[in-house]
Amino acid sequence: MSEIPEQVRAFDLETDVLVLGYGCAGAAAAFEAATGGAEVLVLDKAGGPGGASALSGGEVYLGGGTPIQRACGFDDSPEQMAAFLRAALGPDADAEKIELYCADSVAHFHWLADRGVPFTPSLWDAPAWVPPTDDGLMWLGENSWPFTELATPAPRGHRPTAPDFGGKLLMDVLVAAAESAGVTAQYDTAATNLIVDDSGSVLGARARRYGQTFTVRARRGLVLTTGGFVDNDQMLAAHAPRLLGHTKVSAGTDDGSGIRMAQAVGAAVRHMSTGQAGIALVPGLAARGLVVNGRGERFVTEDTYPGRIGQAALFDQDMDVWVILDEQAFEELPEAERWGVRPAHVAETAGELGDLLGLPPGALTATLTRYNEFAAHGTDPDFHKAPRWLRPLAPPFAAIDVKAGVRPPGRGSARRGTGASVFTLGGLHTTVDGAVLDRTGTPITGLYAAGRAASGLHGAGYISGTSLGDGTYFGRRAGTAAARRS
Amino acid sequence: MSEIPEQVRAFDLETDVLVLGYGCAGAAAAFEAATGGAEVLVLDKAGGPGGASALSGGEVYLGGGTPIQRACGFDDSPEQMAAFLRAALGPDADAEKIELYCADSVAHFHWLADRGVPFTPSLWDAPAWVPPTDDGLMWLGENSWPFTELATPAPRGHRPTAPDFGGKLLMDVLVAAAESAGVTAQYDTAATNLIVDDSGSVLGARARRYGQTFTVRARRGLVLTTGGFVDNDQMLAAHAPRLLGHTKVSAGTDDGSGIRMAQAVGAAVRHMSTGQAGIALVPGLAARGLVVNGRGERFVTEDTYPGRIGQAALFDQDMDVWVILDEQAFEELPEAERWGVRPAHVAETAGELGDLLGLPPGALTATLTRYNEFAAHGTDPDFHKAPRWLRPLAPPFAAIDVKAGVRPPGRGSARRGTGASVFTLGGLHTTVDGAVLDRTGTPITGLYAAGRAASGLHGAGYISGTSLGDGTYFGRRAGTAAARRS
Repeated sequence: MSEIPEQVRAFDLETDVLVLGYGCAGAAAAFEAATGGAEVLVLDKAGGPGGASALSGGEVYLGGGTPIQRACGFDDSPEQMAAFLRAALGPDADAEKIELYCADSVAHFHWLADRGVPFTPSLWDAPAWVPPTDDGLMWLGENSWPFTELATPAPRGHRPTAPDFGGKLLMDVLVAAAESAGVTAQYDTAATNLIVDDSGSVLGARARRYGQTFTVRARRGLVLTTGGFVDNDQMLAAHAPRLLGHTKVSAGTDDGSGIRMAQAVGAAVRHMSTGQAGIALVPGLAARGLVVNGRGERFVTEDTYPGRIGQAALFDQDMDVWVILDEQAFEELPEAERWGVRPAHVAETAGELGDLLGLPPGALTATLTRYNEFAAHGTDPDFHKAPRWLRPLAPPFAAIDVKAGVRPPGRGSARRGTGASVFTLGGLHTTVDGAVLDRTGTPITGLYAAGRAASGLHGAGYISGTSLGDGTYFGRRAGTAAARRS
Repeated sequence: MSEIPEQVRAFDLETDVLVLGYGCAGAAAAFEAATGGAEVLVLDKAGGPGGASALSGGEVYLGGGTPIQRACGFDDSPEQMAAFLRAALGPDADAEKIELYCADSVAHFHWLADRGVPFTPSLWDAPAWVPPTDDGLMWLGENSWPFTELATPAPRGHRPTAPDFGGKLLMDVLVAAAESAGVTAQYDTAATNLIVDDSGSVLGARARRYGQTFTVRARRGLVLTTGGFVDNDQMLAAHAPRLLGHTKVSAGTDDGSGIRMAQAVGAAVRHMSTGQAGIALVPGLAARGLVVNGRGERFVTEDTYPGRIGQAALFDQDMDVWVILDEQAFEELPEAERWGVRPAHVAETAGELGDLLGLPPGALTATLTRYNEFAAHGTDPDFHKAPRWLRPLAPPFAAIDVKAGVRPPGRGSARRGTGASVFTLGGLHTTVDGAVLDRTGTPITGLYAAGRAASGLHGAGYISGTSLGDGTYFGRRAGTAAARRS
């Protein structure tokens, strides 16, 4: 999977900086490299730019006191933002990357806004995957336990102003910015291997387009922004088997090719077993009810960022998860926000409902009795759900089967199947400037990486907006570093 | 971390098969290679043979109808053994390795017995880490839920007859057998890198002894049996961060060197995030009481193999784990089996005890009330603990803090600190014959691996006896394959 230059008589193409993959990290890297004076070529194996970024909700995790936060009345600081991220992205989040990311977050907000990414200064104030409005700010668990005890809460989910999922808009803006800066791109073009010299420095890559192969010299540096590996079942089996068999969150090109090409020239990887799990759970219903496991017990704070519920459901409960509701909880939520879910079972008592779900006898009754007793007093000593969402549930009770899936608006296909949608978080070991490290911790000359091809801010945890956030931020740093080398 | 032969003018030593690491896998590989007609040299960085194997309890997971099982009155079959292991070592256990391992298990028992490993035909019939007797057979969770529903239970933990921990005896026998077969060894000798030819075939290794380096040609093959990487905090941080900071189960030489040397010549790895967690929990007390988490809830079947409780405690409950007992449960267990544990708190009611432990109000009372009600009827619908261990607990109640550690007999140091003792399960990607595969799935010519340097039978799960078991079994296969190549 690598070649030495003796095998390459002459390069077919030359550029200063070669970027492989045109998602958010690739676009940010290409823009900064071009702005730094480099000639930049981007290759993407898809028919156009965007990658998984363009299919996403578009949230970017930003804080420390952005204009949108201040317009909505929230104080914030880089320190509080970092304290939240260390906990939410842990265990074993990257403290060095988090510190820089938070210190520069207001500046990064302005960079995005200056490129033309619009943010509306209003807040969506309830747990959500993607709010049904164009509010530009949302909570991502900062105001839920246990984070309320670890950092001063402030909402930090920044959403591009778009009718629905903002990822397409974000990518349109970033690609236009890169093009304006002089970046050129070739599509339907897959890099197949890196080309190194005798000392192991990366000189360029070989790529294939419509069956033809050609070589590209990267005079200053090569940036891998090829995405994660959720589309590669062989890599999942080897490194992140818990993610196998679930719906893949990707544009179909997250095949781990950049990770493997870099490994072939000696690159180290980190945290390859980690992943995010979105689940078919309607946050507005979960917050108003109970989320219980196959033993009828609560296991998570229901009003937190739903991705945290997803990780707990997939990794700790094997997706054996139910949402328990009463009629009022169901009817309080506007139909448009229910995403087509219907109760799987309804019963007059918690005992009957538990029997219908196959829970251990009496378990659901015990859970509901305890919850209702505390909710009547406006307190939740078990999971500290916010008082706003605490209300004793009244019969009849209903259960929603999370495995049955939902139908989010603006998406062609339902999230069905296993009830979970996943992507990978692990990848190449990089410095804060995107330099790819080998297994001894030494940078591989000429090679950079960012986005989900790299191990970024994350340990095992995940919060929406940190992929587009660390992809664009560390993509920028990698592009800048690659252009600077001569 | 690798060299090509141009750098090596002439090898300082030559042998047919070079084995790196003299634990159970290395001894088994060396014996079989020598028996197969090869000249065999073993290098170990410690001052003598044994490695982590010699410090272990000595249990070997064997079944399918061994003479010891039959003498104790148990029927067993390779199919039932495989069904248990697929579940207990999963998710994502290696089905192909398990099938072979189980099909050959009676033969492997005889191989061990023929070498001179003694097994006493009597059963220790209670959950235990290491029984306080010389009984040669023990349960390792086969008779606990959910495995009772997945496979016909039979005890398969085979213990060498020894006054205490049998690993030393096992290694003494295996090393003596290897020496009798003509194997030679050099100690205090650390391999530093592999030597490959232009085509990537492994020719040998460079090693260092007392500051001198020398090269060894392996004419037929090189077998890596260097152990896992629990002693390498940098590798843990990158691949298995949940294991950081806990007591390391090793002889101090599980530094991942074999994994890294093989990666440097292109080897692939699997399941690097997985690990086993022993915890400071007295199985005889846990089975007689309740094991609860920081919410006062049970989370595991208390009478199962204690290593399963350990994995659940470390990976799912962050070691926030208590054993709840009454006086009868404590006094039923002979003092010698209590390993010095003392209750951290005693109280007249479950409510008071829960308050002392900082559990949510009423949670422990609810758990204990529910348990006692079911126990009075001899049934446990939540975790299916065997009726033998079900008895309503009576006040006063006591709580043991698992983090406080225990003092097992025959061990110098207490398992204190975090309450957990860990080692790694992931490693090199190998075939059933120990051939190390590169990242394209192609064997690296001349390179073999077994034991914890390789990813063996295991997915994320672990059962005692499967390390010595798959180390010796697949070590044998690797040694045979290496000797056969010419």
